[in-house]
Amino acid sequence: MKKPPELHLPPFTLAELAKLLNCPFEGESKTEISGVSSLEDAIKGDLSFCAGPKFRKQLEETRASAVILPLEEKFDKIPVIKSKNPYLTFVKAIGFFFKPYVPLPGIHPQAVVSPTAKIGKNVSIGALTYIGNEVEIGEGSVIFPLVSIYPKVKIGREVIIHSYVSIREEVHIGNRVLIHNGAIIGSDGFGYLQTEEGRSIKIPQKGTVIIEDDVEIGANTTIDRAALSKTRIQKGVKIDNLVQIAHSVDIGAYSILAAQTGIAGSTKVGQKVIMGGQVGVTDHITIGDNVIIAAKSGVTKSVPANTMVAGVPHLEITEWRKAWASIPHLYELLREIRKLKKRIEELEK
Amino acid sequence: MKKPPELHLPPFTLAELAKLLNCPFEGESKTEISGVSSLEDAIKGDLSFCAGPKFRKQLEETRASAVILPLEEKFDKIPVIKSKNPYLTFVKAIGFFFKPYVPLPGIHPQAVVSPTAKIGKNVSIGALTYIGNEVEIGEGSVIFPLVSIYPKVKIGREVIIHSYVSIREEVHIGNRVLIHNGAIIGSDGFGYLQTEEGRSIKIPQKGTVIIEDDVEIGANTTIDRAALSKTRIQKGVKIDNLVQIAHSVDIGAYSILAAQTGIAGSTKVGQKVIMGGQVGVTDHITIGDNVIIAAKSGVTKSVPANTMVAGVPHLEITEWRKAWASIPHLYELLREIRKLKKRIEELEK
Amino acid sequence: MKKPPELHLPPFTLAELAKLLNCPFEGESKTEISGVSSLEDAIKGDLSFCAGPKFRKQLEETRASAVILPLEEKFDKIPVIKSKNPYLTFVKAIGFFFKPYVPLPGIHPQAVVSPTAKIGKNVSIGALTYIGNEVEIGEGSVIFPLVSIYPKVKIGREVIIHSYVSIREEVHIGNRVLIHNGAIIGSDGFGYLQTEEGRSIKIPQKGTVIIEDDVEIGANTTIDRAALSKTRIQKGVKIDNLVQIAHSVDIGAYSILAAQTGIAGSTKVGQKVIMGGQVGVTDHITIGDNVIIAAKSGVTKSVPANTMVAGVPHLEITEWRKAWASIPHLYELLREIRKLKKRIEELEK
Repeated sequence: MKKPPELHLPPFTLAELAKLLNCPFEGESKTEISGVSSLEDAIKGDLSFCAGPKFRKQLEETRASAVILPLEEKFDKIPVIKSKNPYLTFVKAIGFFFKPYVPLPGIHPQAVVSPTAKIGKNVSIGALTYIGNEVEIGEGSVIFPLVSIYPKVKIGREVIIHSYVSIREEVHIGNRVLIHNGAIIGSDGFGYLQTEEGRSIKIPQKGTVIIEDDVEIGANTTIDRAALSKTRIQKGVKIDNLVQIAHSVDIGAYSILAAQTGIAGSTKVGQKVIMGGQVGVTDHITIGDNVIIAAKSGVTKSVPANTMVAGVPHLEITEWRKAWASIPHLYELLREIRKLKKRIEELEK
Repeated sequence: MKKPPELHLPPFTLAELAKLLNCPFEGESKTEISGVSSLEDAIKGDLSFCAGPKFRKQLEETRASAVILPLEEKFDKIPVIKSKNPYLTFVKAIGFFFKPYVPLPGIHPQAVVSPTAKIGKNVSIGALTYIGNEVEIGEGSVIFPLVSIYPKVKIGREVIIHSYVSIREEVHIGNRVLIHNGAIIGSDGFGYLQTEEGRSIKIPQKGTVIIEDDVEIGANTTIDRAALSKTRIQKGVKIDNLVQIAHSVDIGAYSILAAQTGIAGSTKVGQKVIMGGQVGVTDHITIGDNVIIAAKSGVTKSVPANTMVAGVPHLEITEWRKAWASIPHLYELLREIRKLKKRIEELEK
Repeated sequence: MKKPPELHLPPFTLAELAKLLNCPFEGESKTEISGVSSLEDAIKGDLSFCAGPKFRKQLEETRASAVILPLEEKFDKIPVIKSKNPYLTFVKAIGFFFKPYVPLPGIHPQAVVSPTAKIGKNVSIGALTYIGNEVEIGEGSVIFPLVSIYPKVKIGREVIIHSYVSIREEVHIGNRVLIHNGAIIGSDGFGYLQTEEGRSIKIPQKGTVIIEDDVEIGANTTIDRAALSKTRIQKGVKIDNLVQIAHSVDIGAYSILAAQTGIAGSTKVGQKVIMGGQVGVTDHITIGDNVIIAAKSGVTKSVPANTMVAGVPHLEITEWRKAWASIPHLYELLREIRKLKKRIEELEK
């Protein structure tokens, strides 16, 4: 998408917006668009979108001033922008109307920044944030108020770190990483040796964590440092809230982990893997590329690439569907078998 | 319950306390009561309660100086306050002996408060707390040390917010809301569009969160902001620790969510719904009023009002009980069927 | 293990290290060892370990300069330290090469410490940390930056508390306790009385939390205070990240709780109990000593000592294995029974 030279602030006319989105439009070209919203919540001045015929009723009733429609769809009550992928076009449109809040560059006088830290150009460091010795922060990064960055952490360019994030000593964060409030990166892995009397001797966790470029990490998520080498979150991975990543786990590029999922130690997750919420994955296994794991599954063995699994312990999805379709019938089954037994007894007599 | 004019500090006499609680009493009216405790832990001077005959043994052995009993129960070893609902009366009594710790009103000199924030009368703002631009805080609210309130947040009257809470930009908090340590309100919803190559394009989360009056939010719980409109927690809802509320979820009034439960995006939960711990609820469904969801359930479809469900995927509770009563017998079942098969073979011969 | 008088900084010679570890060695005594690593990640100068014949391939290919081997194992490509328990010896060796980062003693000028707090000798209090009235902190303890310690908390000797930990009013912490970032100790228990109209009356949580000696608590874990008496974590317990401990729970000495596990109110857990990740345990039950609970189990009743359980609701492990081995065959079972029924019908004709 080429940005036209004269991009101004909203409102836009329908014609301007269509040009920005590189899409054809139908209806009054001067229609003024000052915001974006869903069909249900839209008010006058809003642009909305309709993903297909399923939402026809909401489309008929919307108060939006214009709507993005699939190329094949017809509608003439309000002006229309046509797109092969209305949702994607709408997501792009949101960016013209809405910028998420970030503080301005500059170091707040009530931040505590070590004199040995190296802070790049145009970095924002909020009030009451602590930056330890020998920390490096790349150009254009934003550290909100009340963040704790331990010594020797390296943070790339255009990173955004929200309040109450802790980055522990020596962790590396790539470029354009977005870390939400309360996430903990680099806490000790959970590793002990049991003595014969059942006491736990702590295994020192001398490794670190590597977060690669374009990763997003959800609120109150925890990512432990490795015992010996590193825990790694590869580029483009998106992690939701309250997720647990144990020591030495490696998450492949572009994978997606929904909320409250947990991955146990040393497990290797492939690329473009998708895990639903509250999934548990055991330690020291391998999840292949493009695997899909249904929400609440418990994965107890390695999973080959390009498969989908569900259940605790997990089964391949078609196996799981067959087994679980049977479970509501179990009680009838037991009664049925008792009856068959009687009939056999009768026959045997 | 009318408060008598001359309420003083503990100790109280039995007669004073009975009057405060609006209940009859039996035994020495001048018995001095200086604290409250359970039957097992009580020491001399404590008031305790006994919910019914099941606890008779603890009642016989208690060292409490007085006890709240059901109206019909008889006991004369120690003085007694009689009540239709002993536990409720005891909970009221606790309030005369114990006030949870809150700091005094006033703004700590080491707080960082924007000059554009509007702070009501008798507000307490603790040390090392950050209050952003254009924040509004209502009368009598208490913000503990080390809280982060982003710009344009609106907070009602008599709200209590503990250390390490983050309230993100533009979130609205009602009156008498209690938020425990580490809760995150208004972090970005987890929403992406997948490109054909499997990369994730972030959907801007331009919506907000509304927390209505009398809500309590547990420690390290996360409530995400909506993509377009709002995530809403309606009045009187009680949320335990480590709960995940995704973007655009709506929780109906007086519902109760136990610890580590997660609700996926855009799901609508009715009024007075009760969820046990570690429940997962899928996205874009509706949970009716008064639904009860057993702990650890995985709810995969909308649930009609006034029903109880359990299991993963969930079943109506009587169906679930029948199915799960059968599971321990599955192994025997398989053997049984093999035997029946043989007997049929014999018969066929 | 006796420490020799002249312990110096790394590198060590093989002979020095073998003496420090109290183990025999084979090969060049002057081999210089400057670090520790796994067989796969080792570089020149590293000491590694091999737990047994299963890792022979990695052993053959390692670039380590020396390796710890079981007494019976033979290997002469590189120098060897022999041990009855190679992993335990390796864990001891890590301690000679690696000390986890902790700040130096002293109170940072930008910490906010109440004048009524009693701070022991050689305590470190980080920048932007808040220490309330009448707090006591024992000798040699380390409080990182951005910690919140509420009034009247008592903390023992050599305790380490990381950024974003909240310790609520009056909580007691023993000696040598290690608390990772974002853990919340002493938030209110989740207790309400329901009125007839379904509203929730808060039960005041006037109790506290006791953390005994040598406990480790993971990142973003929450431990609630009791309603009346105390929540207790006994000595040597190790708790992973994102774990929920409800009010009045008692965890027996040396027990281990993996990540995202939750224990509901008033449950009593025995000594040396091991819980996998994402376990849920219901309220008011007793888990016996040495019980093992498989990951993702839902424990709904008391469990006798020295047993292992799994599943939701839990079963004794051999019962569970039998039942769950059957589940993938359920679909076939249903078909099988239908066939048997037909054959019986035939016979009956």
